[in-house]
Amino acid sequence: MLLLPKLDHHSEIPMYVQLYDYLKNEIVAGRIPEQSRVPSVRKLADFLGISTTPVELAYNQLVAEGFLVSRPRSGYVVHSLPDPYGKLGSGGPPFAKVRRSPLRDEKEFAYDFHLSKNDFSHFPFQIWRRLYNESLKEEQKQLLFYGDPQGEAGLRQEIAAYLYQFRGVKSAPDQIVIGAEQHQLLSILSLLLREHSLRIGVENPGYPLLPSTFRQHGYEVVPISLAEDGIQIGELYESGVRIVSVTPSHQFPRGMIMPIAKRLQLLEWANDVNGFIIEDDYDGEFRYHGRPIPSLQGLVPSSRVVYLGGFSQVLAPALCIHYLVLPESLIDWYDQLYDQTLFEQASSRLHQRTLQLFMERGYLGKHVRKMRNLYRKKHDVLIRSIQEHFREKAEIIGRDAGFHLLLRVNSPYSEKELLQLARGAGIRISSATYTWLHSPVQERKEFLLGFGGIEIDRIEEGIKRLKEVWFDGNDGS
Amino acid sequence: MLLLPKLDHHSEIPMYVQLYDYLKNEIVAGRIPEQSRVPSVRKLADFLGISTTPVELAYNQLVAEGFLVSRPRSGYVVHSLPDPYGKLGSGGPPFAKVRRSPLRDEKEFAYDFHLSKNDFSHFPFQIWRRLYNESLKEEQKQLLFYGDPQGEAGLRQEIAAYLYQFRGVKSAPDQIVIGAEQHQLLSILSLLLREHSLRIGVENPGYPLLPSTFRQHGYEVVPISLAEDGIQIGELYESGVRIVSVTPSHQFPRGMIMPIAKRLQLLEWANDVNGFIIEDDYDGEFRYHGRPIPSLQGLVPSSRVVYLGGFSQVLAPALCIHYLVLPESLIDWYDQLYDQTLFEQASSRLHQRTLQLFMERGYLGKHVRKMRNLYRKKHDVLIRSIQEHFREKAEIIGRDAGFHLLLRVNSPYSEKELLQLARGAGIRISSATYTWLHSPVQERKEFLLGFGGIEIDRIEEGIKRLKEVWFDGNDGS
Repeated sequence: MLLLPKLDHHSEIPMYVQLYDYLKNEIVAGRIPEQSRVPSVRKLADFLGISTTPVELAYNQLVAEGFLVSRPRSGYVVHSLPDPYGKLGSGGPPFAKVRRSPLRDEKEFAYDFHLSKNDFSHFPFQIWRRLYNESLKEEQKQLLFYGDPQGEAGLRQEIAAYLYQFRGVKSAPDQIVIGAEQHQLLSILSLLLREHSLRIGVENPGYPLLPSTFRQHGYEVVPISLAEDGIQIGELYESGVRIVSVTPSHQFPRGMIMPIAKRLQLLEWANDVNGFIIEDDYDGEFRYHGRPIPSLQGLVPSSRVVYLGGFSQVLAPALCIHYLVLPESLIDWYDQLYDQTLFEQASSRLHQRTLQLFMERGYLGKHVRKMRNLYRKKHDVLIRSIQEHFREKAEIIGRDAGFHLLLRVNSPYSEKELLQLARGAGIRISSATYTWLHSPVQERKEFLLGFGGIEIDRIEEGIKRLKEVWFDGNDGS
Repeated sequence: MLLLPKLDHHSEIPMYVQLYDYLKNEIVAGRIPEQSRVPSVRKLADFLGISTTPVELAYNQLVAEGFLVSRPRSGYVVHSLPDPYGKLGSGGPPFAKVRRSPLRDEKEFAYDFHLSKNDFSHFPFQIWRRLYNESLKEEQKQLLFYGDPQGEAGLRQEIAAYLYQFRGVKSAPDQIVIGAEQHQLLSILSLLLREHSLRIGVENPGYPLLPSTFRQHGYEVVPISLAEDGIQIGELYESGVRIVSVTPSHQFPRGMIMPIAKRLQLLEWANDVNGFIIEDDYDGEFRYHGRPIPSLQGLVPSSRVVYLGGFSQVLAPALCIHYLVLPESLIDWYDQLYDQTLFEQASSRLHQRTLQLFMERGYLGKHVRKMRNLYRKKHDVLIRSIQEHFREKAEIIGRDAGFHLLLRVNSPYSEKELLQLARGAGIRISSATYTWLHSPVQERKEFLLGFGGIEIDRIEEGIKRLKEVWFDGNDGS
């Protein structure tokens, strides 16, 4: 066996690594046969004219990885590799050439009626940076470690106080479970409720993330129709489900408010069937004419409501902070789930601490009030623009709250054609079809128009253009 | 009906809110009967000596919430509430008094051999703050919105390059899936592999999060024993599973390295059974004598290895950035899962961007090298201290890598007693029993000692105290 490594004494790669690489390649290629003995450390060092240290280090590494075996008295022997790289192939290119289009449409639109975009020009950049810097300091370096899996106690306390003040939610900090995003919190919830029932009723149409997450966890999802004032209670009783998810403050996507009488009926239903209500309050802070509608959770001292909220709409999605408010009866289940799994908190402690400071010092309340005024103006301009330009050609469904409304259009074009025309004119809107659990037989031509992200002085122009491409055959060309 | 609200003209609460609260309470209490008509806006305003605006706003709010109904010509009528608050109770205290002990032991220890704590005194606080501030700017405010559900493309590119350089992993950025923490990524993985098989083999003993997560998704978990050099390949064939999870670079918790021959056997097994290997490389960067062991994933151009890594050990858990490297054959499944669920990315875009800058500018490589040196010193002091103080009374299992070793103790005390003695002396260590899928019949008295978080000059003292309380009956009192 002739070992003739090309060693570069001036390379940045240490000598022992060069030697290790060379020997490994020779073994893999079969040029140093199995079971053969390699020269002793001293011999190879002499032969190569280098010190013994790099040779020893290289041999040690090859032993650690299993290429060589160290045998007392006989030195280092090449280990037999079962069916060496021959059959499986060796190496391959450093980077595979996997490429596909991104999961989400990244196109820029001149008129962006994105369903859930926020207006970030009023985000408190400076305050947030300052509070983040205050949180990430050497003196509190333990904040870099794993925290409370349920979420930081200080933040949970702030959330409980905030929810009471802004949403009428009654909770203790220990009922609050923080998470990074909804899919993850809904996964946890579906695990907590599994012992209770494996069927869940959902509003149809409604927000699809919840049913798809519960389905992933083996639930049967039962669509429940909507009446003018929210979910059909009679149908709910008939369905036999014992868990239901609702959006009582602002139904998604149709925007109705569940009146107090129906709320009480729903709570009675939960009592009657020994069931649970999931209240998804995704944008409850944002009501534009009149006060926010208080939560269902705080209406009666009920142990049957799971409340779901987050800071994506109120502040920004990129902070990745959402939460559940569990009824007391589910807290023991949560503790058990933790004991079985030992998961970690997914929402960054640094952001949790920053948000806590942001709330403690009263910035959040101020921010919500400011944004509510801003979104109200946009909302009003959008409504006015639609009325002015579309007149009887379209109907507005759901208003006065949240970040979107639904536009039902009377048009001979198909839904697909209408979407293409809008897209062609640089207008982002989306079809509401995906909110139906079973696509309705008849095409509805209902579109979701968000008004949070678009600049206020683009709204009317966008609506005017939309009406033109849809009705005046004016495609802008 | 006599309406006598106490209105405070000097209160911070707006007049219409005071009036709304009063009317709502009267309705709920039944003092304004169902179906009765309330005074017209003008009449009530005159009666109370206020303008009509607050009365109108209060009525509108009560209509929105469903307490009043507006009837043409007959004015506002009180809606009938089904079984009003009577049966369900009304209100309740603002904060329930739910209290329980936190999920995790928060005790401070004088000698903290925590299993996975990092040394944060060398965290690059200033650089991280600077890069975070650079990421969160008005000019790039769109970073506050939802990003790529798979993780930011720029960070995925950096991770692909890093993994190739540091771990020999061969991947394209599109194979990388970013997430906030392991439980969530393992949940996604278990959904991706479900069509393939609902049985998974795991190392026994091993890291319990993986089997518990797969069990939550309906998998049968099959424990596979360890030989001296890693998982038993024969047993793996016999088990009939087609998915297996391994920690080849540094077995958890026993610390052995899987030699090249066994790695090739394992890859052959995956070929033979048309299976998948999950390579959990939780601390692969940290090897203290010799070079890091290259990943299994990069060994051959195989489409059968899922690689799992993260930045908790390398940087800090609080950043909440982990990742999967999917083989090409699973990418379509991932896209399908996304289409079905429309989940959002759980790891904050702000931290993803900060990390991307941190990597682009070469800070990560430097940090890893620095920390490797630091942890090597701690590792060496721990080994030396144990050898010196325990001598033949204990055996060290697994060394030269990661953040922990396993200490097997010869003692007449039970494991529980040994843990209590340690705790009493202010020493945090943990039993390795929880790493076994089925508790072994005989008590093993094996303890996990982490050395990452403890200050270097506390190590020897801690080990000395541990030996004293365990063997010399010296409980420090």
